[in-house]
Amino acid sequence: MFLEASQSIEAFQVLLPLALILVLSKLLSIGCRKIGLPQVVGMLLTGILLGLITLIPNEPIFNSNAMAGINFIAEIGVILIMFSAGIETDLKQIKATGIAAIVITILGVVVPMLLGFLVAGILPGGFGSDCILRNLFYGVILTATSVSVTVATLKELGKLNSKIGTAIVSAAILDDILGVIVLSIVVSLNQALTSASNHVAIDILIVFGKTLGFFVFAIGLGILLRILFKKLSKKYGHHRRLPIFGIAIAFFFSYAAEEWFGIADITGAFFAGLMLSGGKDADYIERRTDIASYILFTPVFFAKVGLTSLSSFNEIDSTFILFGFLFILAGIAGKLLGCAVGAKATKNTWKDSYRCGLGMMCRAEVCLICANKGISAGIISASIQPFILCLILITSFVTPVLLKRSYKNEVPQEISHDIVTLEAAPEIENNEAPLS
Amino acid sequence: MFLEASQSIEAFQVLLPLALILVLSKLLSIGCRKIGLPQVVGMLLTGILLGLITLIPNEPIFNSNAMAGINFIAEIGVILIMFSAGIETDLKQIKATGIAAIVITILGVVVPMLLGFLVAGILPGGFGSDCILRNLFYGVILTATSVSVTVATLKELGKLNSKIGTAIVSAAILDDILGVIVLSIVVSLNQALTSASNHVAIDILIVFGKTLGFFVFAIGLGILLRILFKKLSKKYGHHRRLPIFGIAIAFFFSYAAEEWFGIADITGAFFAGLMLSGGKDADYIERRTDIASYILFTPVFFAKVGLTSLSSFNEIDSTFILFGFLFILAGIAGKLLGCAVGAKATKNTWKDSYRCGLGMMCRAEVCLICANKGISAGIISASIQPFILCLILITSFVTPVLLKRSYKNEVPQEISHDIVTLEAAPEIENNEAPLS
Repeated sequence: MFLEASQSIEAFQVLLPLALILVLSKLLSIGCRKIGLPQVVGMLLTGILLGLITLIPNEPIFNSNAMAGINFIAEIGVILIMFSAGIETDLKQIKATGIAAIVITILGVVVPMLLGFLVAGILPGGFGSDCILRNLFYGVILTATSVSVTVATLKELGKLNSKIGTAIVSAAILDDILGVIVLSIVVSLNQALTSASNHVAIDILIVFGKTLGFFVFAIGLGILLRILFKKLSKKYGHHRRLPIFGIAIAFFFSYAAEEWFGIADITGAFFAGLMLSGGKDADYIERRTDIASYILFTPVFFAKVGLTSLSSFNEIDSTFILFGFLFILAGIAGKLLGCAVGAKATKNTWKDSYRCGLGMMCRAEVCLICANKGISAGIISASIQPFILCLILITSFVTPVLLKRSYKNEVPQEISHDIVTLEAAPEIENNEAPLS
Repeated sequence: MFLEASQSIEAFQVLLPLALILVLSKLLSIGCRKIGLPQVVGMLLTGILLGLITLIPNEPIFNSNAMAGINFIAEIGVILIMFSAGIETDLKQIKATGIAAIVITILGVVVPMLLGFLVAGILPGGFGSDCILRNLFYGVILTATSVSVTVATLKELGKLNSKIGTAIVSAAILDDILGVIVLSIVVSLNQALTSASNHVAIDILIVFGKTLGFFVFAIGLGILLRILFKKLSKKYGHHRRLPIFGIAIAFFFSYAAEEWFGIADITGAFFAGLMLSGGKDADYIERRTDIASYILFTPVFFAKVGLTSLSSFNEIDSTFILFGFLFILAGIAGKLLGCAVGAKATKNTWKDSYRCGLGMMCRAEVCLICANKGISAGIISASIQPFILCLILITSFVTPVLLKRSYKNEVPQEISHDIVTLEAAPEIENNEAPLS
């Protein structure tokens, strides 16, 4: 019944790596913020630096026991990050922006996915039937936008509440939802196709049935939970029970998604958040979750990505390097083109359409989490990670520079008083103001 | 270099048990608070209830993989709880109370330890040289007081700031420090004695040298860190970096204690907290740590204790049951007598001395954590856990009732306006006010 020796983790051996990760990633994040890069970059660099230690043969710190602990914390971290991403989704904003956001999102998802799919064809196996899902998954990774850098830049320029500013934010929200749905379908299709059964058509039907089943389950139960949380918020606003129940729901949805419906646990976590978003205490729940995350889980997740990226380097051959560069290009060009065309099609100026494409091309944690899912499901190669890191680094550097240049010679539409607050936001906690 | 299959934990399988633990322990804690019991009791009951599920043969939820995850989270939780206990220590208070607190503490530690040691002699092996450390450890478990219930009761009665009220609070703080030091010595003595060496005297000398070494290390490094944190607090008050660095230090001290000095990791965590206590942002660091704890780690730790208590039931024979009851009696009588005599010796009235004994006899998490340490080090039997649960339950019930009765027919010294706040304190978060 209880713990077998083979599976136990010696907790104290994990403590030294954890301490190193926490201190180094905080220092490097602070450094990155000072030079205008997102903190995610600092956390990833931590993993890469610590990865250099692991290259020493038989080094004792990052032993297999420690890595088991780090991986476990990282997995819980992924659930918390996706729950947080779901709960901060502001569905009202999308209603306000309407059709433009929808068109930008659809093109911004389809074009990079298609380009990713196409470039993955140069890998061994090409477009053979065995490789379709793999190629598709490389496309899926490219769908998730992260607009935190764009939002910061637009805020600084005083353009966040401009027509194209709100369109970008709305599209980025829809983008996450669409991306997560596509990911779920691909993950469960993979399970159907790799099963031993000969009735592929029936299997695929079952997959779609189960995926649909999950959404019925998540939305049905989610509506009941929204009502419950509304009552709880009224009576017990800012009580500890709210974030605790919230996280329990995230865990339960994740488990149900993976175990009962055969789709990714991160989809469950994201939808748990989505169903609770917009509620009276949604902000409060998100802030509490974020505190637990930033204190341990998020830095460990990013450090783990950095660590494992380095270890996958020796598996990379020249074809994969070529693919990797094309993959990065597909990621940048796909979003830039897809979103710009979407913006132009919904009656924006050429200049604003270009800005929309620029603003949407940033990637961060969701992109990594999707890749992580594909790697652990055995769909794609772990060697893709360093290239995703490059994509994140490049877009984080380039987007603010080009966005600012595109607004040169224009009078700011609104003078922002938020610059100082914004700079400090990811670090200072005022407790009253929602964290970024 | 990386993760071996035998040690990895399937994270998604841990999510359902975690969700169950979080929801049930929050509900039961709320229930316990309503009838005036500490929340710890609710969390322990959760583990016992869920433990009933695990009695079903081959039940799928609490499988060995899930238990490995739960144990790991519980271990990290223990570090966070002990760090929190250390950082909330108010050394200034002790200075103010002076000699009375010291005498009460010493007698309140020595008497229950002695009684625990003596009653453990009825176990197989008696007072044979093999069993001395085991018997001593059963005594050590009984040293740790938890005054939260007492503080709540005294506050309600308006007696917290009375002479005996402050003496109780101070003695409880010193009590933790002394208890942790004794625990460290016993744990490391055990390592020396179980090693294959024939030079027992030298081994014991090494143990004391190492234990002393740890305190020199912890206090030396701790003073440097205090200075660093003072500077950081001045420049970056309420910045995220403070709790992150704080927790990293707790992890590092824990690792160092266990790996380099051969003493318990919880000693390291406690001293990390102690060295940062009283600083400008100590409250802030403690609150952030507590948020991470209550959202996941603490409920999981207590549930784990409940779960494993139930599974140890079938290993209990009649001798152990007799010992268990004597152990509970030793725990109650030892504190009551030791502290009452200590209070009387420092010129308190008989009535106040009796109240001091009553107030000091409550036990909670530190008691469990110490026992946990002895169990995992193989010094004592896991079967002691249900009896410790009984000790916690009995003292939590009895202390408030008897304390209130002892104050009957007395005019309250001060009218307390804190009753409502206090009731709500463990749940509502005002964010400005420190949490209880």
